[in-house]
Amino acid sequence: MDSSLLFLLFTILTTTIPTVEPKSNSYPISFPRSYHPSLIQTKEPTPNLPFKTHFFPQILDHFTFLPQSYSIFYQKYLINSDYWDNGPIHRAPIFVYTGNEGDIEWFAANTGFMLEIAPKFHALLVFIEHRFYGESKPFGKDSYNSADTLGYLNSQQALADYAVLIRSLKQNLSAEASPVVVFGGSYGGMLAAWFRLKYPHIAIGALASSAPILQFEDIIPWTSFYDAVSKDYKDASLNCFDVIKGSWDELETLSARNQALVALSRTFRTCKNLQSVYLATNWLWRAFVYTAMVNYPMQANFIMPLPAYPVEQMCKIIDGFPPEASKLTKVFSAASLYYNFSGTEKCFNIENATDAHGLSGWEWQACTEMVMPMSRSNESMFPPSTFDYKAFGEQCMMKYGIQPRAHWIITEFGGTRIEQVLKRFGSNIIFSNGMKDPWSRGSVLRNISSTIVALVTEKGAHHVDLRYSTKEDPDWLIEQRRKEVEIIQRWIDEYHAGFEENN
Amino acid sequence: MDSSLLFLLFTILTTTIPTVEPKSNSYPISFPRSYHPSLIQTKEPTPNLPFKTHFFPQILDHFTFLPQSYSIFYQKYLINSDYWDNGPIHRAPIFVYTGNEGDIEWFAANTGFMLEIAPKFHALLVFIEHRFYGESKPFGKDSYNSADTLGYLNSQQALADYAVLIRSLKQNLSAEASPVVVFGGSYGGMLAAWFRLKYPHIAIGALASSAPILQFEDIIPWTSFYDAVSKDYKDASLNCFDVIKGSWDELETLSARNQALVALSRTFRTCKNLQSVYLATNWLWRAFVYTAMVNYPMQANFIMPLPAYPVEQMCKIIDGFPPEASKLTKVFSAASLYYNFSGTEKCFNIENATDAHGLSGWEWQACTEMVMPMSRSNESMFPPSTFDYKAFGEQCMMKYGIQPRAHWIITEFGGTRIEQVLKRFGSNIIFSNGMKDPWSRGSVLRNISSTIVALVTEKGAHHVDLRYSTKEDPDWLIEQRRKEVEIIQRWIDEYHAGFEENN
Repeated sequence: MDSSLLFLLFTILTTTIPTVEPKSNSYPISFPRSYHPSLIQTKEPTPNLPFKTHFFPQILDHFTFLPQSYSIFYQKYLINSDYWDNGPIHRAPIFVYTGNEGDIEWFAANTGFMLEIAPKFHALLVFIEHRFYGESKPFGKDSYNSADTLGYLNSQQALADYAVLIRSLKQNLSAEASPVVVFGGSYGGMLAAWFRLKYPHIAIGALASSAPILQFEDIIPWTSFYDAVSKDYKDASLNCFDVIKGSWDELETLSARNQALVALSRTFRTCKNLQSVYLATNWLWRAFVYTAMVNYPMQANFIMPLPAYPVEQMCKIIDGFPPEASKLTKVFSAASLYYNFSGTEKCFNIENATDAHGLSGWEWQACTEMVMPMSRSNESMFPPSTFDYKAFGEQCMMKYGIQPRAHWIITEFGGTRIEQVLKRFGSNIIFSNGMKDPWSRGSVLRNISSTIVALVTEKGAHHVDLRYSTKEDPDWLIEQRRKEVEIIQRWIDEYHAGFEENN
Repeated sequence: MDSSLLFLLFTILTTTIPTVEPKSNSYPISFPRSYHPSLIQTKEPTPNLPFKTHFFPQILDHFTFLPQSYSIFYQKYLINSDYWDNGPIHRAPIFVYTGNEGDIEWFAANTGFMLEIAPKFHALLVFIEHRFYGESKPFGKDSYNSADTLGYLNSQQALADYAVLIRSLKQNLSAEASPVVVFGGSYGGMLAAWFRLKYPHIAIGALASSAPILQFEDIIPWTSFYDAVSKDYKDASLNCFDVIKGSWDELETLSARNQALVALSRTFRTCKNLQSVYLATNWLWRAFVYTAMVNYPMQANFIMPLPAYPVEQMCKIIDGFPPEASKLTKVFSAASLYYNFSGTEKCFNIENATDAHGLSGWEWQACTEMVMPMSRSNESMFPPSTFDYKAFGEQCMMKYGIQPRAHWIITEFGGTRIEQVLKRFGSNIIFSNGMKDPWSRGSVLRNISSTIVALVTEKGAHHVDLRYSTKEDPDWLIEQRRKEVEIIQRWIDEYHAGFEENN
């Protein structure tokens, strides 16, 4: 199943989405918070993954020395040593994926890039699962019960886990002299970049793909994300943009009518009659946002099976209608591409497309440290909205009994004036981004120094560079990956040169 | 009182000293662990300190989100704004002392360098107290009760405290654009260096004076510290070295005799009869080690009132005896310089010179993260000994019910092959050291890059550069401080240039 990474897309997106339908929003329709991984995750084992599974006894709390901090949990990690031939002797590199919010197998299966470049580097591959996800739950099935257990889930603990595990692994392999390069996409990319910044003695470099490390506080405009989504559709077709933008009003008008839900259920070909207009909104919204994120240049099955350049395809569908057709009919057809590209769906389970407000790890992280304010301007194709720290805090308080530490990430990891800060500090980070990906706006898009570089593609989407290569890969993607390999090779060469110099 | 900083010297030194008298040591005499600050601290207010006292509501645990992590304690900090004239408008710098293990007033009183250079830079001065010391105790008088409270005392939490406090302070002063430079000596210097490495977005540079960040695991030889002490005495006089080295055997031989303690009490002019030979050993040992640390080129009252170059003075005393005089008589006279330079002591309270095994913050830190292995070679002037992780762990277990995390500091902060790691990573750190200081061997003594530099003086002792200047300052000390000012000025100029470039 290729839909695995969807999880991280969805979950990272939930940050700014209110848990409940808004009470006093400027517009009655809001983006629901309820994209839970459990709806998307398929628990089938990913077939033929060339990894061996291991478990590492990890300490519960690296940053306090309370008696309970010493508890051990078993952290999962995957290893491929097919190309690691006498690696320790040759100081061959170790490539580590800094796992994000999901089962580590999904990330392994969707980061074919690492497997493909491993032979060239004779690299050992390690994929480490993030604490509280997959099988790495410190309190087993009770891990998500409350703040008393979830309290140990955060990015700093995760980074420390990686540091401890990598150091121990190198020791066990007698590979202390092997350089480590970290890789990650999305939140995993944020972790990779932060790991290089905080643990430069453990990783010589980081490839941080689609890593929105600047999506905090007021570093970038709060409207960036939705503006970028809107731009994707506007670039494809101005009419398409206008139709989508206008559809929310049409939906609202319709919802005021008699028998609105019956009519809507018919228009949207729902399997069961709709109980709320909100569900239809959510269903449309999700299709447009996620299609923008995975607007890949090749047919792919990442979130859903989709054709190449799916945004353009959606807009072609919208533009193909006669002007007089209702906007709702048009957007429904476009969204159907997202939900039914295979053509096998006879009706849509819109009711089930959102779930109850169960707990999930990312929602916890979003309610504690990963507070990414987002709003929607009048110019976006979505209904305008603002972000309110206070309201957000109240929701988190209601849900978990704790307040978000909305300013913590910047305090801990920086981000403000990042170019000035890192111009003379740090090195060896690649920030790769595709401008079609709305998350790109929260990442680093310009070279900061000769060794902290941005690889930006105009047509790329959410960490497309980390995926397996395909025959349909366009030249710009091949070139982006080639540059990444070249830069990583340089890090390793410099490391080896320095090693010999000093020995 | 100038004896305040003694605390940090003593306490940092206790790391490798067993809590109890050794059971199966290779030599019956061991360096006691019991130099408690309470014996040295004078609680008199330091007079005429030009600072205003503030308290900051600080969060108890930055790295978990448990309900109890959100508890607030009040962290003390001192501010001097005498030279901060329209500082925010001019983006004038903020100089922050990253407090170490003691009352913050002591550090303020003993870091005259910052006060002296503040006018030149129009700098705001801030001295922040380390959590669990002075008046910054999260659980008040219960703070040291057990691991349940002490568990929150460690260097990472302290660094995060500084980050949060500085960020908030800058915001309150509308001084977000003012560059911050951090300063520290000894453990405070380690914190300053680590702060620059971990929080480069908050501090543009660090002056880390006598900061033994490499005194962990096997980065430097375990014998370094005592070898350096021995070298100080050997450099002063070979005879002096030989006498001290031989005195331990003489002491041991004496202790086997009848009426040994009575004889010893007489030789050592104790106020009360000695109850243990161990106390006399400890008393001598302390005098030689601490005098080496504070072997300043001017008369000073740092740990004790001492003349300029006190090691040389001690050796002169030893060398002044006729060869046939007993070694014990000689070393007692030398040690008397340390304990009685003022000549006012009629007898010595050797019994009280060590205290009961009460809790202290540094002992906790030494038993958790600050595990600095030290041993003594046959070539040192002290009885040889080894360091045993297991035995050390057992002592900590007995004392606090927790195991040291002996490998954590290197995992979190690095240190191994530091030159290679930081050659292309990081910037703007001065490691200043004096080679007379035995701690210097655990610090960075060679330039790592053009911006991570070592300022080493052959004749300097423990962070002498941070002290108030005196008329007796030798040229090399004046020059060391001049270079520090020059480098700090460059950091600030570069910061301002970068600021204007980007705005």
